[in-house]
Amino acid sequence: MGMTNVIFDISMSLDGYVAGPDPSDEDPLGRGGELLHEWLFATRYFNDTHGTKGGGDDNDDSRLLDQTWGGIRAEVMGRGKFSGGSGPWEADGNARGWWGDEPPFHYPVFVLTRHPRVPLPMEGGTTFTFVSDGIESALDQARAAAADGDVLIGGGAAVGQQYLKAGLVDEMHLHIAPVFLGGGRRLFENHTSAAPAQLERTGVVASPSGVVHVSYRR
Amino acid sequence: MGMTNVIFDISMSLDGYVAGPDPSDEDPLGRGGELLHEWLFATRYFNDTHGTKGGGDDNDDSRLLDQTWGGIRAEVMGRGKFSGGSGPWEADGNARGWWGDEPPFHYPVFVLTRHPRVPLPMEGGTTFTFVSDGIESALDQARAAAADGDVLIGGGAAVGQQYLKAGLVDEMHLHIAPVFLGGGRRLFENHTSAAPAQLERTGVVASPSGVVHVSYRR
Repeated sequence: MGMTNVIFDISMSLDGYVAGPDPSDEDPLGRGGELLHEWLFATRYFNDTHGTKGGGDDNDDSRLLDQTWGGIRAEVMGRGKFSGGSGPWEADGNARGWWGDEPPFHYPVFVLTRHPRVPLPMEGGTTFTFVSDGIESALDQARAAAADGDVLIGGGAAVGQQYLKAGLVDEMHLHIAPVFLGGGRRLFENHTSAAPAQLERTGVVASPSGVVHVSYRR
Repeated sequence: MGMTNVIFDISMSLDGYVAGPDPSDEDPLGRGGELLHEWLFATRYFNDTHGTKGGGDDNDDSRLLDQTWGGIRAEVMGRGKFSGGSGPWEADGNARGWWGDEPPFHYPVFVLTRHPRVPLPMEGGTTFTFVSDGIESALDQARAAAADGDVLIGGGAAVGQQYLKAGLVDEMHLHIAPVFLGGGRRLFENHTSAAPAQLERTGVVASPSGVVHVSYRR
C-alpha cells in the first residue's frame, strides 16, 4: 500500500468557487456552476466512464484524466456528492443516491455521514459504504480497498477542506475554469491549520478549453 | 489611444489571497504574504527596474515581465499601495509614500484617495497624481498619460475588484503562487456584477519557481 496516493481533485472558478450561488435540488451546482465542468463533460474519458453512449473528444483534457483518474481504485465523498440531503436515511427520498443503478465509479466508495447505515452494493462494481466515525476512518478503509491503487477525495469542498487541514492529501489537482461565478461555495475557506505552507507544483496543462490543470504535492 | 490595454496584474496564493493574515505597518503583506512575491524579487526584470544594484535571474519569469510590464506607461493604484494610511494627508506620516525619492515606476501614477491633494513629482519620471473623483476619472487620466502604451491597474485587491466589477479591465494577469496563506485579503470578494462570466484564456507560463502565470481577456 506504500504506492497509494491520496488525491484531491476538483474544478474551481477563477474566483475560487466550486459551485455557484443559489444552489437548489434541481440545480445543485448553483448559478453558472455547470460552466466549471464543461471541459470534463466534453472528454472521451468522461463519456467512456460515465456515459452510456460513448462519444466525447480524445483531447488533452481526456488524456490527463486517463493518466490521473485512471489509477484510482477507491473514493471518499461527502453525502452531498452521494445524494444531497441530510438527517436520517429512512426519511431521505434520495437514499440510493443520484448516480443511478449502475454508478460510474466502478470501485468502492466511502460516504461520510453522521447517520450509520449498512453498505449499499450497486451494479458495475460500485459499493457505497457509509462511514460515521470520521474522516481518518474513511480514508483508512479506502486505502485498504484501493490496495496499491490511488484514493480519490472526491469532494465536495467541505470534505476536501477537512482532508487538507488534516494533512492527509498527497496530491491536489485543480482544474481552473476561465469563469467568474461571483459567489457560491468557496473551495478554500477557513483553511488555516497548516498555513502559510508551500507546495511543490508538479504539473501544468493548458487546455484548449481555456481550463488550466495544475497539480501540486505537499 | 486605441492600442491601450488596461491590465490588472497581481500575485495570488492558491487559496485566493493577495496578502496574508494580520497585516501591520511593519508587515503590510501579512503573515506569509512575502511568499507570493519571491518569484518576482528573484527576476532580473524586477531588479533592473526596482533595485539599485542590478542582479536577479534572466529566467522565464523575467522575460514574461519584460513582455507584459514593459509596455506599461501609466498606473492606477490605491492609497494602500502608495503609502498605506487613511485620513487627511496633512496628518499622514508617510505622505510621500514608501517608494523612496526615486520610485521604481518611472511613469505617471494615479493614486485613488478620498482626500484631494496637489500632484507630487518625484525623481526619475514618476509623478503621483491624486484622484478623488472616482475610478473612471483615474483611468481616463491614466489612459491620456499612457498615450498608446498600456495602463496597469496596480492594486491592491479592492482597487482591482472595483475595476473588474465596472468592466474596465481588458487583460487580467494572475501569478498563482504554490502556497496556502490560510487567511488574509482575498483577491475576489463580492465580485458579483458581471457573473457568471466566461473569459478567454490567452496565456499560460509554468515557471520553474512553482508559480503559474495565467492571463485572460474578457
